[in-house]
Amino acid sequence: MTAPHLSRRGLVGGGVAAGLAVGAYAAGRASAADDLPTSAAGDAYAFRGAHQAGITTPAQDRLHFAAFDVTTGSRAQLVALLQAWTEAADRMTRGLPAGEIGPTEGAVDLPPDDTGEAIGLPASGLTITFGFGPSLFRDAGGRDRFGLADRQPEALRTLPHFPADALDPSRSYGDLCVQACADDPQVAVHAIRNLARIGFGTVAVRWSQLGFGRTSTTSTAQSTPRNLFGFKDGTANIKAEEESAVAQHVWVADGDDPGAGWLAGGSYLVARRFNMNIEVWDRQSLGDQEDFVGRTKASGAPLSGGSELTEPDFAMPGSDGPVIPRDAHVRVVHPDFNDGARMLRRGYNFVDGTDALGGLNAGLFFIAFVRNPDTHFIPIQNRMAEADALMEYVQVTGSALFAVPSGIGPGEYVGQALFD
Amino acid sequence: MTAPHLSRRGLVGGGVAAGLAVGAYAAGRASAADDLPTSAAGDAYAFRGAHQAGITTPAQDRLHFAAFDVTTGSRAQLVALLQAWTEAADRMTRGLPAGEIGPTEGAVDLPPDDTGEAIGLPASGLTITFGFGPSLFRDAGGRDRFGLADRQPEALRTLPHFPADALDPSRSYGDLCVQACADDPQVAVHAIRNLARIGFGTVAVRWSQLGFGRTSTTSTAQSTPRNLFGFKDGTANIKAEEESAVAQHVWVADGDDPGAGWLAGGSYLVARRFNMNIEVWDRQSLGDQEDFVGRTKASGAPLSGGSELTEPDFAMPGSDGPVIPRDAHVRVVHPDFNDGARMLRRGYNFVDGTDALGGLNAGLFFIAFVRNPDTHFIPIQNRMAEADALMEYVQVTGSALFAVPSGIGPGEYVGQALFD
Repeated sequence: MTAPHLSRRGLVGGGVAAGLAVGAYAAGRASAADDLPTSAAGDAYAFRGAHQAGITTPAQDRLHFAAFDVTTGSRAQLVALLQAWTEAADRMTRGLPAGEIGPTEGAVDLPPDDTGEAIGLPASGLTITFGFGPSLFRDAGGRDRFGLADRQPEALRTLPHFPADALDPSRSYGDLCVQACADDPQVAVHAIRNLARIGFGTVAVRWSQLGFGRTSTTSTAQSTPRNLFGFKDGTANIKAEEESAVAQHVWVADGDDPGAGWLAGGSYLVARRFNMNIEVWDRQSLGDQEDFVGRTKASGAPLSGGSELTEPDFAMPGSDGPVIPRDAHVRVVHPDFNDGARMLRRGYNFVDGTDALGGLNAGLFFIAFVRNPDTHFIPIQNRMAEADALMEYVQVTGSALFAVPSGIGPGEYVGQALFD
Repeated sequence: MTAPHLSRRGLVGGGVAAGLAVGAYAAGRASAADDLPTSAAGDAYAFRGAHQAGITTPAQDRLHFAAFDVTTGSRAQLVALLQAWTEAADRMTRGLPAGEIGPTEGAVDLPPDDTGEAIGLPASGLTITFGFGPSLFRDAGGRDRFGLADRQPEALRTLPHFPADALDPSRSYGDLCVQACADDPQVAVHAIRNLARIGFGTVAVRWSQLGFGRTSTTSTAQSTPRNLFGFKDGTANIKAEEESAVAQHVWVADGDDPGAGWLAGGSYLVARRFNMNIEVWDRQSLGDQEDFVGRTKASGAPLSGGSELTEPDFAMPGSDGPVIPRDAHVRVVHPDFNDGARMLRRGYNFVDGTDALGGLNAGLFFIAFVRNPDTHFIPIQNRMAEADALMEYVQVTGSALFAVPSGIGPGEYVGQALFD
C-alpha cells in the first residue's frame, strides 16, 4: 500500500477542507468537507454542571455501558486519561467529533481522531457518565495503586454475594465505568468506542453491555416502558422533578463520608445484570405473573386497584391473604418496608444472543443511582433474595459498584476533586 | 401462590375486558382493557405477497435475527409450527399481539399468548422473513429428516470454508432462520421472542444476533448509513427501485433449479458475522483506510472522484498505480470483476460485549439476498479472501445459508410450496 495519498487527494479534486467550525453548541458533526450532510442538532445535554449528566437526565432510549481496567501504574497517566476523556465527552455530547480534527479532516498519513460512524448524526441526547470502582483505590491485595487509598469512600466496596448471584467475572467489577445513553444506539456506541480508543494503552475494556430499551422513567414527562417480563417497569422510580427525593436518596451530601469529601454532589452507581428465564416466565399464567409483580400487566396498576400511579394498598384483603401477595415484587421493594429508601433507576432491556440451553440470553441491565449502597441497595437486594417471587425467574450474572463523582465546571476534568 | 385470581380481579374492579378487536389493519396492540395507551399505527408492511417482506422492503433501522434447530422428527409438527408462525407473523407485522387473545386479555389461569413487552408500540415497520437451512433437508449424516431431501435446492449447501473464517459453530448454521427487522428494537425482539415461545418443544434457538444500525440501503429514498469502520456502506447495493436488477440478481426464477421448483419467487439468504478488529483499524491512517475501501471516508465518493453515486473509474492512474488500489474493497467486489454479479445486502452493525483481548466484540452482521450463492456470493467471497485489503481487519465468526421461500397468499403458510 504505497499510493501517495496527498497527490491522490489532489488528483481527485477534493483537497483538504478547512478546519471544522466548532463554536456552536450542539452543531452537527459534519462540516464543509466534500458533501457531508449537515445534521439537525437533536437534543443536547450539557456535559458540565453541578452533577454529572445521565443521572437525572430524562432516560434516553439506548445504552452502551462499559467497565474498564486501568493497565498503567502511573497516576499521571490516569489523570491524563481523565482529562482526555473529559474533553472528548464534552465534545461528543454536543454532537461534535471526539477530537478537534475530526474523522475526515486530518492529514491522510495520520489516524483520524474520531472513528467516523457518527458522521452526520445529531447529538441524540447523548450523556456520558463516569464512575470509579473500588479496585481503582486498592487492588485485590489491598495495595494502594494510585495514592488514592486514603480517599476511598467507605461504602465503595465490592458488593456482597447475594443468593441469586451467579456472577461471571468477565461481566462484573471494573476500575472505571462509562455509561453512555442516547436516543440513537450508533451514537452511544460511537461514544464508548472513541473513549476506548483514546484510552488505548492506559485502560482495557473489561466488559461492555448494550441495552436497547429503557425500562425506567426519570422524568414525570416520560411514559413508563416495559421490561422483558412484559410489565411496566419504573413506575415508582424517583423522578427528576421530585427535587427533595433526589437530594435525599441520590446525591451524596457534604458530611456523608468525611474521609471522601470529594464525592459530595456525586452518587453511587449500582450495575446488576439480571438474566431473565423468559422461556419459563412465558409459561406462567397471567394471574401468577401479576401476583409475582403485584401489579396488573395491562395498566401497571397495583393489584389493590386504581391506575398505574396509585399507591399500593398492602393491607387490602383478598380472598386468601392480602390482594397484593406477601412475596409480590412491588411489596418487597417498597420504601414502606425498606426504611423509606428509594433508588433512582436507569435500567435497560438486553438480548445478548442465546444461552447454553437454547433460550435467549435476555434480561434487564439494572442501573441504580443511590446516595449510599449500604442503606439504599444492599438491604433491599437482600430482601428481594429472601422474599421476592420474581427472583425465581432471574439470575444475576453481572455486578459492579462505582462511585460517581460530582459534575465539573469549565476547565476541570471529571473526578478532579479526587486527585487534587 | 394460591391467591384466587378471578376473584382478585373482580375485587379490584378491572374485570375481564371484551375480546380484542382485530379487524383493522395495523391497529394498535392495545385495546379497551384498563387504561392501555392506543398507539399510532406506524409503518406496517403486508406479511403476505408475491415475495416475502424484509428483502426489498426499505431497510429498517434495527435487527433481531435468529437461527433455530428443529428438535422434533415429525414432519406434521414442523408443518404445524410453520402454520402457527405464519399466523403470528401476520399479526405482529400489523402491530397486533402474537396471538388472538393478547398479552392481558386472557384467562388469569393461563399463560398469555403474547409476552407483552410491545404493548402500546406500533407496527414500527416490522418485517419477519423465514428461511430453510440445508440441515432441514438432510442431517450431518445425509439422512432425510422430514421427507424433503429430494426437494433440496442444489445451491443450498453449507458454505465452504473461506480463508478468513474462524467460525464459532454456536453462531453458525441452523435448520430455520427468522429475520425480524423493525424501526424499534423492542418490536424486533418481541417478534423473535414470541416465535421462539410458540416453537417451544418443536424448535430451539441455535443462535441469535441483534443489530443496532443498518448498513445498507434498499431504496433510493434512503441515505447511506455508516458501518463501524466509519465508512458509508451499501452505496452500490441493489435498490428495490431497480426492478430488472432485482429480478436478475435476487429472486430465484422458474427453471433455475428444476429439482426445487418450490423456491421460485424466493431467494437465498447469506448471513456472515464479520468481527471487525476495530482497535487495529482505528490506528490506521486516514489515507490507508480510504485506500483499503477505495472511497473517501467523508462523502463515500470513489477515490477516482465525483460524489458517492459516481461509478468508480478503476483505470484512472495515480502517481503509483491506479488511484483506486488493486486491493481496494470497492474494486474487488465490483460487478465488473465478478461476472456482473450483484447482491441485495441488508447488513447491521453489532456490538456484543467484549472480546478476549479487551477490545469490543463488534462488527458487521452481513446479510445478503441472492438468486444463487454459487454465482452471486461464493466466488466474490473467495476473491475478497484473496485480494481485499479490508480482510486484514475482519474475522468471520458466524456463517449460515438459508433458502428463503417465496411469499404466500391468503390462507397459505410460509414455505407451503415445499411441503405440498
